Amino acid sequence: MPTLVLTIKKTVFYKKMIASENQNDGLAETNRKIVLAADLGGTNLRMAAVDYDGKILYRTKLKTPKTNDSAAIVEAIVESAIECRRESKVRGEISTIAAAVPGTVDRKNGVIVKAPNLPALDGLQISSVLKRKLNLSCLLENDANAAAIGENWLGASKNFQDSIFVTLGTGVGGGIIINGKILRGVDGTAGEIGHICVEPFGAECGCGSRGCVEQYSSATAVVRLAGELSERFPKSDSSVDSTVTSSEIYSAAKAGDKLGLEVFRRQGFYLGIALAGLINLLNPEIIVVGGGAAAAWELFMPHAVEQIHKRAYSEPAKRAKIVRARLGDDAGILGAARLAFN
Amino acid sequence: MPTLVLTIKKTVFYKKMIASENQNDGLAETNRKIVLAADLGGTNLRMAAVDYDGKILYRTKLKTPKTNDSAAIVEAIVESAIECRRESKVRGEISTIAAAVPGTVDRKNGVIVKAPNLPALDGLQISSVLKRKLNLSCLLENDANAAAIGENWLGASKNFQDSIFVTLGTGVGGGIIINGKILRGVDGTAGEIGHICVEPFGAECGCGSRGCVEQYSSATAVVRLAGELSERFPKSDSSVDSTVTSSEIYSAAKAGDKLGLEVFRRQGFYLGIALAGLINLLNPEIIVVGGGAAAAWELFMPHAVEQIHKRAYSEPAKRAKIVRARLGDDAGILGAARLAFN
Repeated sequence: MPTLVLTIKKTVFYKKMIASENQNDGLAETNRKIVLAADLGGTNLRMAAVDYDGKILYRTKLKTPKTNDSAAIVEAIVESAIECRRESKVRGEISTIAAAVPGTVDRKNGVIVKAPNLPALDGLQISSVLKRKLNLSCLLENDANAAAIGENWLGASKNFQDSIFVTLGTGVGGGIIINGKILRGVDGTAGEIGHICVEPFGAECGCGSRGCVEQYSSATAVVRLAGELSERFPKSDSSVDSTVTSSEIYSAAKAGDKLGLEVFRRQGFYLGIALAGLINLLNPEIIVVGGGAAAAWELFMPHAVEQIHKRAYSEPAKRAKIVRARLGDDAGILGAARLAFN
Repeated sequence: MPTLVLTIKKTVFYKKMIASENQNDGLAETNRKIVLAADLGGTNLRMAAVDYDGKILYRTKLKTPKTNDSAAIVEAIVESAIECRRESKVRGEISTIAAAVPGTVDRKNGVIVKAPNLPALDGLQISSVLKRKLNLSCLLENDANAAAIGENWLGASKNFQDSIFVTLGTGVGGGIIINGKILRGVDGTAGEIGHICVEPFGAECGCGSRGCVEQYSSATAVVRLAGELSERFPKSDSSVDSTVTSSEIYSAAKAGDKLGLEVFRRQGFYLGIALAGLINLLNPEIIVVGGGAAAAWELFMPHAVEQIHKRAYSEPAKRAKIVRARLGDDAGILGAARLAFN
């Protein structure tokens, strides 16, 4: 009988230990679950070792090699991964790398299908390449989807089940989360919020269509709109020429420049049309807007919100919170890491 | 011991009976599971007793009472329900009624929130009213969602997991099915495909916005477009006046009338813009188009398909089948019934 009691006590003791470890995310500090997460952009290649809580333990940032040769880009990824693994090794073993890619991916086969800003990688079986070179299993995700997942995990849409992420950068990207899960569609191409048409006979878009919201609400669009409008505002301070940047137009507009203000009014007007359509279609709890061109928030967002309330059904329009992204450049890395942990 | 053996044998026998019944959808022919399903439209009130296979056992159709008094409409629903229940009673007991409603519904509380074409019902706690009068539990669903579910159960999108249903009627309605489930959004208002903007400074819409696809691709829009274009086509056969109908415009266009052809070109052009956006956003397997204004399919759909292939990303555009609805006026009833069975 004493033996039996001891056994029961032991079991209780072990169960307590396991419960305590679970509260600590399953592993002790030095053996915490860690993944590598990469955000492969047209400009920068970011890599990080990320733990189960989303803490970035070590990170690297390289310029993405400008090349038509996929091998050079793969080499940069491998070097970054080796450095991150080496520098975080003391914190735990790493068995997975997840990569956010600026394009469409075949997640099942680990293939980059089409990356418009990194065409050298089109068709690359990157998962098998990284598996061979790093002995890590590899997951792929579209970069905007990864950022949406990152913001939903640890950022602006944390604790919301139905959210939309829009990033206003060189282009306009997006990710849709429904019931806590990213919406991928039948072939994984869903979420292309930047290519909703908002002006049927509008500016030609890189996607082959015209009048996409990307042509009005991206950083690139801000510069183009300023050029198009410059004749109507001859006294503008924006000094629009071929070298003007969206942040210079922002500075001028903040100082009251009428051309600049009109540019951001249009950026917001068309963004609002796209978001109103998304609200009518998806009835989300929250829309998170990030990306470099979100910097001019106070200049364009009031116009976007005005269009949302003019155009969307009133109940879902009132329901949908519109907020700024919180994770900045880390959203993609953290989203990729989250996928690896799941 | 013999007693014990007998008991085991009995259990096996009962299990076999249950298995055999399950293969027969749970109940014998005369005791088959049956629900009442209603499709409450602005014009007609359809009711049916529907079995687990989607077979309509008995049906009624009344003109929806034109009244500001919800009691008269409720009375019509109750009478139809009593008739359907009585006439199908020999086939089995009925415990549930499901109703497709042309507006937004609070499914949880069984309330019709807002029905623009039946404003007498706004705010009506219809579930508790029907429970009291019929002693049936009551489920509500938006009518376009119900039709989407019906087509997905037994119609054009059967066996597809990711589908979109668009109905071109007096207005343009829609339902989105993702992973086999209707997308409702956080408050149940999702799927308003008719209120995607396709022309930012376009025709005013009943929803309060302007340029919604409903203003270009509904039956109502076909008539309005014909009126707007009549000055440009003085020799048209369409004889556009205040009494022309969309089906008369269709007949004229089929006979080669240029005004009519231009009307349907525009109907298709704008529908295509909306569908291209949906394809980029949702990457569906199939888009089902129904409703009365889909009758002119061969006149407008080629233009819609042209815009889809010009505007949507090529892979998801190639993937998305565009097909006609199959269930006609029964889609809403069958979808409501499906919900009751689930």
